[in-house]
Amino acid sequence: MNIEGEGTMKETNVEKAIQDIYPDEHAWCFGCGRLNKEGHQLRTGWQGDKTVTSFTPDSKYSGGIPKFVYGGLIASLFDCHSSGSASLAMHRKNGHEIGDGVLPPRFVTESLNVEYLKPTPQNVPLTAIGRVEEIHPKRWKVKSEMYADDTLCARGEVELVVIPSEFESR
Amino acid sequence: MNIEGEGTMKETNVEKAIQDIYPDEHAWCFGCGRLNKEGHQLRTGWQGDKTVTSFTPDSKYSGGIPKFVYGGLIASLFDCHSSGSASLAMHRKNGHEIGDGVLPPRFVTESLNVEYLKPTPQNVPLTAIGRVEEIHPKRWKVKSEMYADDTLCARGEVELVVIPSEFESR
Repeated sequence: MNIEGEGTMKETNVEKAIQDIYPDEHAWCFGCGRLNKEGHQLRTGWQGDKTVTSFTPDSKYSGGIPKFVYGGLIASLFDCHSSGSASLAMHRKNGHEIGDGVLPPRFVTESLNVEYLKPTPQNVPLTAIGRVEEIHPKRWKVKSEMYADDTLCARGEVELVVIPSEFESR
Repeated sequence: MNIEGEGTMKETNVEKAIQDIYPDEHAWCFGCGRLNKEGHQLRTGWQGDKTVTSFTPDSKYSGGIPKFVYGGLIASLFDCHSSGSASLAMHRKNGHEIGDGVLPPRFVTESLNVEYLKPTPQNVPLTAIGRVEEIHPKRWKVKSEMYADDTLCARGEVELVVIPSEFESR
């Protein structure tokens, strides 16, 4: 998403992302679908026992304050990062890892909470770091912090449920 | 935002929107900046004593479930709708209305809560209806419901503060 010449900091490299193994028909999310070339193509992976999603938004995603990022993008980052994090964690709980050929469980968001602590500057990598908690076999919670470069700018708390089967076949 | 041929329902018409009178330098928000041609250009106005924002997202804003909208867009809708709603309400409290030549107060988001009640279908107008509450002279709360056509799909609760003066001059 980075425009050439913008951004001096490095994004956190995610080698294996859970979104890489979503089925093709579910890989079109504007936030994290790998096949949606117009979207953010967010990628979420493990970083120790935490999860990480990192990307640098294009300048068009400006907020109402010049040189800062719009709030909806930060919400979108927490949403897709949390969905990916829950998927990673449940996949591991089920005994699987990315690359073993088994499709991961996927989640839909029930509730999203974002606290905006500071305006988030443009042209630096935004990195969400999450902790996943199982609150019920089919309902998971992800608490995350989002940094712009090294500055904590927002906190997110997201509850997700395993995707209902009636949406799996579409 | 509507693609020709998509969408059969009508959006709620907002004749006078608060975003129409934001200063040019603050009119670039991807969610609601009237000058950001690549963004959603959300517009928020009065509907009786409630506020309304209505638009039909482009198909590229797909979610992880085909034929539905991604969660980040719904969060973005609530965020900008709430910011516009608080601005409308405080402007009115200050004795002003859109069109009298006075610039409105503007807000930044402190916290955003979204409850996703049902998957939100594509290709129908999404309409957020809000109630604004003053909880402090500089801190306002907006509670909203979002409908896809006539179906309630999400609820939002957003707290906002009057934009700090150091961000006004940029």
